[in-house]
Amino acid sequence: MANMLQKQPIFIAVIGVGGVGKAFLSQYDQLRQRLDPQSTNIDLALILARTSKKQVLSERYGALDASKVPQMLEESNKPYLPFDSILEFLEATPGKVVLVDNTSDLDLAKSYPRILEKGISIVTPNKKGFSDDIQLWDAIFSSALRGGSHVYHESTVGAGLPVISTLKELVQTGDEVTKIEGVFSGTMSFLFNSFMPVGGGGGKFSAEVTKAKELGFTEPDPRDDLNGLDVARKLTILARLAGLKVESPTSFPVQSLIPKALESCSSGDEFMERLPDHDEEMEELKDAAAKEGKVVRFVGSIDTPSGEVKVGLEKFDASHPIAALKGSDNIINFYTKRYGSNPLIIQGAGAGGEVTAMGVTGDLIKVIRLLR
Amino acid sequence: MANMLQKQPIFIAVIGVGGVGKAFLSQYDQLRQRLDPQSTNIDLALILARTSKKQVLSERYGALDASKVPQMLEESNKPYLPFDSILEFLEATPGKVVLVDNTSDLDLAKSYPRILEKGISIVTPNKKGFSDDIQLWDAIFSSALRGGSHVYHESTVGAGLPVISTLKELVQTGDEVTKIEGVFSGTMSFLFNSFMPVGGGGGKFSAEVTKAKELGFTEPDPRDDLNGLDVARKLTILARLAGLKVESPTSFPVQSLIPKALESCSSGDEFMERLPDHDEEMEELKDAAAKEGKVVRFVGSIDTPSGEVKVGLEKFDASHPIAALKGSDNIINFYTKRYGSNPLIIQGAGAGGEVTAMGVTGDLIKVIRLLR
Repeated sequence: MANMLQKQPIFIAVIGVGGVGKAFLSQYDQLRQRLDPQSTNIDLALILARTSKKQVLSERYGALDASKVPQMLEESNKPYLPFDSILEFLEATPGKVVLVDNTSDLDLAKSYPRILEKGISIVTPNKKGFSDDIQLWDAIFSSALRGGSHVYHESTVGAGLPVISTLKELVQTGDEVTKIEGVFSGTMSFLFNSFMPVGGGGGKFSAEVTKAKELGFTEPDPRDDLNGLDVARKLTILARLAGLKVESPTSFPVQSLIPKALESCSSGDEFMERLPDHDEEMEELKDAAAKEGKVVRFVGSIDTPSGEVKVGLEKFDASHPIAALKGSDNIINFYTKRYGSNPLIIQGAGAGGEVTAMGVTGDLIKVIRLLR
Repeated sequence: MANMLQKQPIFIAVIGVGGVGKAFLSQYDQLRQRLDPQSTNIDLALILARTSKKQVLSERYGALDASKVPQMLEESNKPYLPFDSILEFLEATPGKVVLVDNTSDLDLAKSYPRILEKGISIVTPNKKGFSDDIQLWDAIFSSALRGGSHVYHESTVGAGLPVISTLKELVQTGDEVTKIEGVFSGTMSFLFNSFMPVGGGGGKFSAEVTKAKELGFTEPDPRDDLNGLDVARKLTILARLAGLKVESPTSFPVQSLIPKALESCSSGDEFMERLPDHDEEMEELKDAAAKEGKVVRFVGSIDTPSGEVKVGLEKFDASHPIAALKGSDNIINFYTKRYGSNPLIIQGAGAGGEVTAMGVTGDLIKVIRLLR
């Protein structure tokens, strides 16, 4: 009669209910409905949803209705609890807990070691913890080992594209990854596919930045994309998974597309206003590439044998897969000993709430399988 | 002191020690050495290796040295045991067992339900079990559920490329897969990339088949590639994972490249001798495509809403990613609701001992994590 006993649920706590968080809650709700506890012997219970200002906690660890959580958060007028109280609540949970961090908060990421050490697993698209100082990286994975907990972060690179899982599998099965090269930013992809499409055309650089901003392809302040740091963080994660001891995302060359003279701009608006004064610099690069029959793209690359990691503009032949990219797609080329001269390529949308949440939900499914 | 107790090993049994099997044994050997039982709390023990003529069994379930297995098999003069005796040996193993089927044997695949029901997990690149009658497919997965065992088969499509895992994740996280299209055969890829490269050139079809055969890109009898059945089996697997009830790999249209008049050839040699008489038919197709600025490729496609699955020649614009494929690479395009107009693309070598074994080793790592 053992299989008729009520299975202990796995408890889910969500922090961050913005674009990715809302998409995740919706995917989670569908997942929970598909996982019929009768046949799969798996039950999930959402017990916490928290934003930077509010939180909803379940009573006596009963399951919250994920579809109603955004509204519950809006209507909540309970006092905002400090994170330590939240952690106490999770520690006291009568079962296994998975924390879903849908924020981009470095402070929360700095708490990962403490959380994992307590046996609480983490799934997250938050790049910060995995791309900051290498001490934090080491602490995260050693704490998980000690706590018997799991930490998955597929969506930290390429959103829902299977980038992290593929790289891990190459390494774990004993392949030698010699080089990783690609376009790792949807914003940079869109910007350069528009600025210098294969076959000619494209407007001035500042005009393309304005267009990308208007279409919602950039951060509210486009300098946060143009400084290259987002790509540098992704490269840091991949390089570490490939076995390189990268100290931090500022410990290797990262080309910023913010002109020197505009580094002192006090606001994004001022920056956007003055950017057209520097179109000539980008136009020269474009012309020089065109003369060689090439196009300019903003890429990141990792050369494993030499340990060289870099982020910046490169020229590619018009026939190269990186040149032929469309829209805001990402492309990641893995060159390995086993795959030889033709790389293993993964390509597709690398940003957006739904595809980012998909990577998070996929990670959650993996962790649930390991915990049940 | 619990963590100082000797951990019960997970027992590994290998059937099939050809090209993929030898590469797997070598990857397994490295994996086992990296998995230090002291720190990871995982120990593996290889207890069986078996070919179609010989087998090596460990004594008292001690671990065989994987690096010596090919030689041990060669030197073995023990009587060949029937499969039922092997199964009894595995059932009596004092712990959890993973069977690695590196054969392409349909008979062995027909035993999967019986094996899985006994709680023995399976990892395999053998397409046969997953692409035969749908009753066998259903029996495999329901037996695994009843037996509490796991069955993974990443390398049945695209070798080590993350095709199966990606499709599963799309489906499990609630995306709607609307279309899957791609080049699923290394042989067909090489053949058509040579016969009709983008930009012109390429020899007569029969000459390209001869070249592909000489370079080892075809089966010993090239008709086994040209009949399209290998691609049809892969499409059957993907369509089923996408939710379609495909009866068998012959229940949808599959274009064979074996000319009608040559279907009666009694040998591969006779076929190869007479193939040049039919070059004109392929040349006409090539010319017709060239007039439209297109190239001909041998592809498979699955249209989920209509349930249409088909395998055969299609024309593609020279700029299409399927046209631009190189060497013997596979490419798989997943069109889904979340990914919108630009598909999620996976591309790279889809055949070869090392990359096929990588998919098997990757699956083994996943199963080990679930079993420990």
